[in-house]
Amino acid sequence: MSKIVLYMSMSLDGFITGPEDGVDHPLGINGRRLHEWFNDGGTDPASHRPSSDPSAQVFDEMLATGAVITGRRTFDIAHQWGGDHHDGVQIFVLTRKAPTENRWDNVHYVTDGIESCVAQAKKAAGNRNVLLHGAYTAQECLRAQLLDEMEVALIPVLLGEGRRLFEDLGRDHIELEILRTLEAPEVTHLRYRVQAK
Amino acid sequence: MSKIVLYMSMSLDGFITGPEDGVDHPLGINGRRLHEWFNDGGTDPASHRPSSDPSAQVFDEMLATGAVITGRRTFDIAHQWGGDHHDGVQIFVLTRKAPTENRWDNVHYVTDGIESCVAQAKKAAGNRNVLLHGAYTAQECLRAQLLDEMEVALIPVLLGEGRRLFEDLGRDHIELEILRTLEAPEVTHLRYRVQAK
Repeated sequence: MSKIVLYMSMSLDGFITGPEDGVDHPLGINGRRLHEWFNDGGTDPASHRPSSDPSAQVFDEMLATGAVITGRRTFDIAHQWGGDHHDGVQIFVLTRKAPTENRWDNVHYVTDGIESCVAQAKKAAGNRNVLLHGAYTAQECLRAQLLDEMEVALIPVLLGEGRRLFEDLGRDHIELEILRTLEAPEVTHLRYRVQAK
Repeated sequence: MSKIVLYMSMSLDGFITGPEDGVDHPLGINGRRLHEWFNDGGTDPASHRPSSDPSAQVFDEMLATGAVITGRRTFDIAHQWGGDHHDGVQIFVLTRKAPTENRWDNVHYVTDGIESCVAQAKKAAGNRNVLLHGAYTAQECLRAQLLDEMEVALIPVLLGEGRRLFEDLGRDHIELEILRTLEAPEVTHLRYRVQAK
């Protein structure tokens, strides 16, 4: 059955971007540090693949997902991935208001909330998992108890400032189960199952 | 040579206590969740030892340190560890103003800053490492580039609110080197070297 899986790179101090993230600095000032594990196999997006086996494994799993959910902010900052995140799978962009123009066949703006977004993405993914990107959307998903698993690439750096992955979740604990730990030289890949409350 | 090693338990979302930490709730509301890995071998402080091998190893290493540095807040909330954190090693408490009374032979209040505190603790530890406890003191140490290593017990839970381990570090990155990852069923033990700037 299709699962919603968050894929994010996070510094040990919890940041997914450096400060002042926006169109000028998509990952914030010096935030590209967080994606070095991902780009060390080359900078050509069509062919790059991490060089270490554990990172390549996580990368391949990510690209085996059958649909993508993302927040509007992440989507736009990433230049809409040119309309294709990977393999032409359907992309569902959670947003309050859809733009008047949509250039991409595979991109669907979802304005009626996270539940609808998750349902549409799962349907599109079939038996494959759904890749989730974006901190705010992840938080929405966690609060709605719709997130199944998390694959966190924990980067050995303290960024000090930036945008946090986990914020505004309230004080009710969310218990996780450690599913897998993969050690690469420059990143620790942590996979968790989100436990039902 | 003696190294300063931070030992802390942290939730995946970066908290070392639940909300409203203080004398009533030393680890904040429900913050004891973070120390379960540590206490699962029993609640008698004189004999408890974690039940899993990886956690027991980290525990033993912690108790092999030759001196302790702690912040005043952590020290008081922990009821001053009854004057003895482990094996009667010297305890150095970083504070702005020493109390008028000090009941413990092994406890030294240090009021002239983190550099002095580190120097005194290293001297007392001899060839052994120095255990560092407390978020604020860790931040002081990081900013002064005096922290050598970190042993983070990463707990599979999102606390949502509480006191963060890493805060107010500024926007200069602090690079870490992954030294070791130990996987226990209920905690991931991450050891890092703090790289010089």
